[in-house]
Amino acid sequence: MAQHRRKRSHKSGLPPGTVVHIGEAMPGKVTLSTTIYGEKKHLEKAVKSVEECPRLPDPENTIWIDIQGLSDTEMLHKFEERYGVHALVLEDIANTVQRPKIEDYGTYLFLVLRGLRKHVNRVESEQISLIYKDGFVFSFQEGLSKDHFSGIRERIRFARGKLVHQKTDYLFYSLLDSIVDGYFEMLEVIGERIEEVEKEAETNPSLKTLNEIHSLNRQVLFMRKIIWPMREVTAYLERGESDLITDNTRIFLRDVHDHVIQLIDMIETYREMLSGLSDIYLSTISNRTNEIMRFLTVVGTIFIPLTFLTSLYGMNFQYMPELSWKSGYFILLGFMAVLTGGMIYYFSKKKWL
Amino acid sequence: MAQHRRKRSHKSGLPPGTVVHIGEAMPGKVTLSTTIYGEKKHLEKAVKSVEECPRLPDPENTIWIDIQGLSDTEMLHKFEERYGVHALVLEDIANTVQRPKIEDYGTYLFLVLRGLRKHVNRVESEQISLIYKDGFVFSFQEGLSKDHFSGIRERIRFARGKLVHQKTDYLFYSLLDSIVDGYFEMLEVIGERIEEVEKEAETNPSLKTLNEIHSLNRQVLFMRKIIWPMREVTAYLERGESDLITDNTRIFLRDVHDHVIQLIDMIETYREMLSGLSDIYLSTISNRTNEIMRFLTVVGTIFIPLTFLTSLYGMNFQYMPELSWKSGYFILLGFMAVLTGGMIYYFSKKKWL
Amino acid sequence: MAQHRRKRSHKSGLPPGTVVHIGEAMPGKVTLSTTIYGEKKHLEKAVKSVEECPRLPDPENTIWIDIQGLSDTEMLHKFEERYGVHALVLEDIANTVQRPKIEDYGTYLFLVLRGLRKHVNRVESEQISLIYKDGFVFSFQEGLSKDHFSGIRERIRFARGKLVHQKTDYLFYSLLDSIVDGYFEMLEVIGERIEEVEKEAETNPSLKTLNEIHSLNRQVLFMRKIIWPMREVTAYLERGESDLITDNTRIFLRDVHDHVIQLIDMIETYREMLSGLSDIYLSTISNRTNEIMRFLTVVGTIFIPLTFLTSLYGMNFQYMPELSWKSGYFILLGFMAVLTGGMIYYFSKKKWL
Amino acid sequence: MAQHRRKRSHKSGLPPGTVVHIGEAMPGKVTLSTTIYGEKKHLEKAVKSVEECPRLPDPENTIWIDIQGLSDTEMLHKFEERYGVHALVLEDIANTVQRPKIEDYGTYLFLVLRGLRKHVNRVESEQISLIYKDGFVFSFQEGLSKDHFSGIRERIRFARGKLVHQKTDYLFYSLLDSIVDGYFEMLEVIGERIEEVEKEAETNPSLKTLNEIHSLNRQVLFMRKIIWPMREVTAYLERGESDLITDNTRIFLRDVHDHVIQLIDMIETYREMLSGLSDIYLSTISNRTNEIMRFLTVVGTIFIPLTFLTSLYGMNFQYMPELSWKSGYFILLGFMAVLTGGMIYYFSKKKWL
Amino acid sequence: MAQHRRKRSHKSGLPPGTVVHIGEAMPGKVTLSTTIYGEKKHLEKAVKSVEECPRLPDPENTIWIDIQGLSDTEMLHKFEERYGVHALVLEDIANTVQRPKIEDYGTYLFLVLRGLRKHVNRVESEQISLIYKDGFVFSFQEGLSKDHFSGIRERIRFARGKLVHQKTDYLFYSLLDSIVDGYFEMLEVIGERIEEVEKEAETNPSLKTLNEIHSLNRQVLFMRKIIWPMREVTAYLERGESDLITDNTRIFLRDVHDHVIQLIDMIETYREMLSGLSDIYLSTISNRTNEIMRFLTVVGTIFIPLTFLTSLYGMNFQYMPELSWKSGYFILLGFMAVLTGGMIYYFSKKKWL
Repeated sequence: MAQHRRKRSHKSGLPPGTVVHIGEAMPGKVTLSTTIYGEKKHLEKAVKSVEECPRLPDPENTIWIDIQGLSDTEMLHKFEERYGVHALVLEDIANTVQRPKIEDYGTYLFLVLRGLRKHVNRVESEQISLIYKDGFVFSFQEGLSKDHFSGIRERIRFARGKLVHQKTDYLFYSLLDSIVDGYFEMLEVIGERIEEVEKEAETNPSLKTLNEIHSLNRQVLFMRKIIWPMREVTAYLERGESDLITDNTRIFLRDVHDHVIQLIDMIETYREMLSGLSDIYLSTISNRTNEIMRFLTVVGTIFIPLTFLTSLYGMNFQYMPELSWKSGYFILLGFMAVLTGGMIYYFSKKKWL
Repeated sequence: MAQHRRKRSHKSGLPPGTVVHIGEAMPGKVTLSTTIYGEKKHLEKAVKSVEECPRLPDPENTIWIDIQGLSDTEMLHKFEERYGVHALVLEDIANTVQRPKIEDYGTYLFLVLRGLRKHVNRVESEQISLIYKDGFVFSFQEGLSKDHFSGIRERIRFARGKLVHQKTDYLFYSLLDSIVDGYFEMLEVIGERIEEVEKEAETNPSLKTLNEIHSLNRQVLFMRKIIWPMREVTAYLERGESDLITDNTRIFLRDVHDHVIQLIDMIETYREMLSGLSDIYLSTISNRTNEIMRFLTVVGTIFIPLTFLTSLYGMNFQYMPELSWKSGYFILLGFMAVLTGGMIYYFSKKKWL
Repeated sequence: MAQHRRKRSHKSGLPPGTVVHIGEAMPGKVTLSTTIYGEKKHLEKAVKSVEECPRLPDPENTIWIDIQGLSDTEMLHKFEERYGVHALVLEDIANTVQRPKIEDYGTYLFLVLRGLRKHVNRVESEQISLIYKDGFVFSFQEGLSKDHFSGIRERIRFARGKLVHQKTDYLFYSLLDSIVDGYFEMLEVIGERIEEVEKEAETNPSLKTLNEIHSLNRQVLFMRKIIWPMREVTAYLERGESDLITDNTRIFLRDVHDHVIQLIDMIETYREMLSGLSDIYLSTISNRTNEIMRFLTVVGTIFIPLTFLTSLYGMNFQYMPELSWKSGYFILLGFMAVLTGGMIYYFSKKKWL
Repeated sequence: MAQHRRKRSHKSGLPPGTVVHIGEAMPGKVTLSTTIYGEKKHLEKAVKSVEECPRLPDPENTIWIDIQGLSDTEMLHKFEERYGVHALVLEDIANTVQRPKIEDYGTYLFLVLRGLRKHVNRVESEQISLIYKDGFVFSFQEGLSKDHFSGIRERIRFARGKLVHQKTDYLFYSLLDSIVDGYFEMLEVIGERIEEVEKEAETNPSLKTLNEIHSLNRQVLFMRKIIWPMREVTAYLERGESDLITDNTRIFLRDVHDHVIQLIDMIETYREMLSGLSDIYLSTISNRTNEIMRFLTVVGTIFIPLTFLTSLYGMNFQYMPELSWKSGYFILLGFMAVLTGGMIYYFSKKKWL
Repeated sequence: MAQHRRKRSHKSGLPPGTVVHIGEAMPGKVTLSTTIYGEKKHLEKAVKSVEECPRLPDPENTIWIDIQGLSDTEMLHKFEERYGVHALVLEDIANTVQRPKIEDYGTYLFLVLRGLRKHVNRVESEQISLIYKDGFVFSFQEGLSKDHFSGIRERIRFARGKLVHQKTDYLFYSLLDSIVDGYFEMLEVIGERIEEVEKEAETNPSLKTLNEIHSLNRQVLFMRKIIWPMREVTAYLERGESDLITDNTRIFLRDVHDHVIQLIDMIETYREMLSGLSDIYLSTISNRTNEIMRFLTVVGTIFIPLTFLTSLYGMNFQYMPELSWKSGYFILLGFMAVLTGGMIYYFSKKKWL
């Protein structure tokens, strides 16, 4: 994150609307692909420049233009001239530290959200931007290593589901839906780890357990930051405030909204579970330490008077009558045995042992 | 829960509207039953397929179709063709990790909520879906082992209460009401256990008490997750935003809404009680440990100077005048008695003992 | 409370609108009284059945029917036939675990609230229901041992205040106002005990203090649960959403609303005071224990090297030169004195003593 | 506060609208003064009864009637007959435990707020009520010892600022503004003490510091209770919902509203600072205690094996070969030195010392 | 801050609208500059008095008047006469403890916000006020040492970006935007320090770490106080409630609003991170102390019975049979070795060592 932020300040001072790529440099080359499909047509090809993409909508078919990689800012600029996308929108697409949001520009909808990617053993997020305008959907993926829409591409290719029979806004919905579906997968992985840690906290808590709890909490907070703002985005779409969305698709968008609410529910449940776990861990550990200390202190206390007595009869006074008693030693041993028994009885009765 | 979630991700990648049963596999066979009743008629029979159920509403009577078990997805699909239920609704019915919600599809209302079931010594929840359309009520129960509506069935059979004299929406209300009534029962059981733990925490707190408190807290949170979203559901029905609900039934729905508010109130009270109990437990335990440690430390402190003195006169210096005093030993014993008395007096006065 | 709840579940399974008395069985007999009063008339009598009460309103006078005790469900049922009270309302009246609420049934207002009663040394609450319809006020008191409206009865008897010159809704307001006034009294008692505990926590904190704080907290929470929902009730009345309330009386209802806000304010203040007290108590206690432990540890530490030295010269080696020095003993005593002084100085300087 | 509350219950049972002075008995005599001023006129005089005050508004001038002391309830009653003030308003004026509020009675505005007064070393609050009606402002001050409006009086006397050129509502605003200005002064004093305590907590924390933090917290809560409700009051005035306020004055009332928001901001900042301070204090203290205990325990632990060894060679067995070694004593001394060195090295390396 | 507040009370008692400079005295001289620019014109000059600035708007160009330093209250007063700025606005400009806010005076917009400045190693804030009226933008900067708008000045000078082609409201937007951009820079610095402290807390926590956490928390709270109120300010502008803002500029203001939301998001994330860090620190430290204490107590406990035994055989009783056994000493040594081994085994098994 430090990296992102450091880059953000590189831009301060530049006039607004300046398209500068802010974010981690992703390895690999920017790719541009066009998919034109409908009930009768299916055309999928990789192109080299925006100029090769169709300029006007096709009443029969849906045109989907997908870009992976955002470092080629010149390519982004061409969307302003060719498709009338506002410079600020392009600035937001390139600046990959956006909060998920939706903006209605009248003739087109602009949506920013975050796709998830597993990296070694932690989850990373990439910015994904969608623009939906009459007949077109543009998608901009930050990362180069993973295509977040491969499932959709296959559904189009093999004409699975309703996708090819629907209008353009259904593609827009489908892309959004596939990203939200990805959130479930990640949350389920976190959920399973929480359950493992739960067992560990009950049976064998250690400092490692606490670190795990903290790490899981951080991950849940990370997911929360990504998913919370989605609530407003899908609520906006579901309310049907934009004329660009047909009523048929709105029912599906309501479904996505439900999923987002469900995700938020899961996240809040996880947070509560983790907070409960942390409490259990802390009270278990503190209980254990207290028990040990108490036990040891009680044991120590039993020996204190005994050692005093032995020390007493180790003194070198010339006249100490007990020392010359024949069975003095055995009397003392007996007394000490009685004393010890008495103390053990007393401490047991008080439940200190 | 891990099981549910693992299954949820099986579905990701499938087109929306695909009806896949997500949830625990419940043992037993799917059953389908039809109840047709009115002022003059009462017909109850188990059927084998959806095709055997009446297709059109009966102006005199109410038709209630109940399904127990959701694993037969083909049977579910038939509701789409025969009764015009949207594919997304059927998807939600089969996917049993829904959050309670109500959706108005214009010609019918779709309601999802969760019924409770005791399993060994913990509470489990099952998804129950209701669809109410003109003349029909469809109910879908996830579990096979318990019929959540047996009370309603009996009331119809023996024409008890107003049920048989009312319109279809009253059946819809009655089914909803009977589920909400079940929540009270479960909460009362939890409430009684809280009171038992309360007594335990006051008289004889142990680590077990704390575990009980945590476990009760988890159960209350579980109930809360189920009941909280019901608030919106019943508020929607009570506000009368749907034309499908008659004014007469709305007064009864207001009553259900009141019950839900009351349940939420109970839950919040329980949470506060449990949080207070946890505080009392922790301060009692910490107080007890402190008292023991303090007592033992004070006792130990009394012996420290005594043992020093005995050790002093155990030294082997050739010239130690006190050792040759005739009553040296008794003088020392006296001095130690005075010292001990002094220290006990001092510590008592300072309230350390 | 366990008692209430156990009874609640007795009802589950019964059709809605079934009037069942839920709550503690109150000792004593149900009483029914009628008061008819106006500028010129005053008639107060105890009656035996609802049939003896006037059926139609009296344009000159106000008719107030008061019932103490709710166990006679048959008597309650007669209000449905005679005065058109909805069965659900009667169910709510008999079920005495209602949350305070107001419901507008068009021709009458139904209000549930809780009156307070001192029982030995704790506060108990009883359900009080009010129905106001044109010309009539019905009041239903759960308890038999205390008449919550004795003050109002006297004001009518001796024509004190404006009561006899006002319309029926003013009686409705007066009954509500007298209950809310009772809350102040109880809160003041709690407030005084908080101040006493505050002094105790500062001067002589003990585990008893903490228990008192917890007990007071529970009482404040109890009051809060009763008074919070009143806010909505009085806000509804004050906003004048019901046509049954005249503008003149609304100004008085605004006053009641103000009192409820003031009560909530007091409750929140008490909660903050108690939470602050609990913090002070805990830090005082922990501070005291720490001081004692620290003092004792320091004292013990001073003796540790001294006892080592004495033990050293108690060894029985044949050749230990110091033992044969003539003033070896006195040199050691001197050295130990210097060592002790040095340690005391060091610990004092470090503020450990 | 106990005093106030005890008095509040004296009133319960009395009919509403009964004007009873509730609050601390303030020493001194009730005073009544009239100020009539305008562009050309300035007349200020003390009067003995309400009857001496002008009854009708003066189109050229503003009439300000100020009362200090509320114990003369008869005098208050005369405002009902002479100026049409509602009995409930007079009841609220006399009952000095009101929450700040504004009420619009159509022909006049009634405002209750609290003025601050330093008493020895703590802040006390007095109720101040303002009534603004066409041409008149009535102000009622609870306390007798301090005139909260002396600044305004001087501005009128010496025609400073815009006051004498403005309408009556500007006087109403000015009185409100002068009270709110007084809040800043008090908060600044608290702010300075917080900074002092902050330094103390960093350099030399003691139990006194914690008590100071708690006391400051109580004071901030006290201010918060007084200032929070003012937000609604000034928001109401600023929104211009009352026709009695001219647009010109409304701009000034927006300014007062801003001040109240700023005060609330300061209070929240102070609360956060105090809560942070309390955390710092507690962790500093606990850190210090831990360090001392750890140090002492480590020191004690070093001596434990040494004392064991000396005790070992203090045994009186007849045959202990080491005792007869010529340099046995010196070998042991050497061994103990090495052991001590080793332990110190080990503990230092582990950072325990 | 104490300084500010002390000065605030200097003003209390003065009539409203009195322009008094409240805040720290900034070193240096007040400067006044005029910038007139448009598509064809660019004129930038320092002037000495407000009278030298153009009085009327220039339809072709934008006039920007900038003041650095607020101590010359006479100069401020001239804006009232010359440009019709309300006295209360000027009072707010001079009183530099304002909360960020926007006020619409019909013909002009008044905006107060806070610019950031690094001072040695902490962040300080200065008040910046903007007034935008037809054709004019007035900016008032509190500080003299830093020009917050140097970037904008350069963009105008070298006609970079769209600034010179846009209307006056675009300058207003640009000034606001440049301040908000500055917030990112400061937050990034804080973010980097948080990450450093995070590493420190994991590897080598000390009291210094905790102090750093508290200090960072204070800084984040400081930023939060500055940025939170900006949310309302930019939301107001973005909603387009003022007619003074053109639709074109509104899109840019929505962008600023997004940035503010993003900043608030960052702040909340930082707070959560710091709170998590504080928890980790405290549990790490407490864990470490507990481990040390436990280890030392266990070690001490092992020696307690050993020392008792040696002390036992150091007694001087005349008849102690063991003492005269030939191998008594070696038997005891062996027994003590076995005992020690047993205890070490027991404690290891119980995981106490």
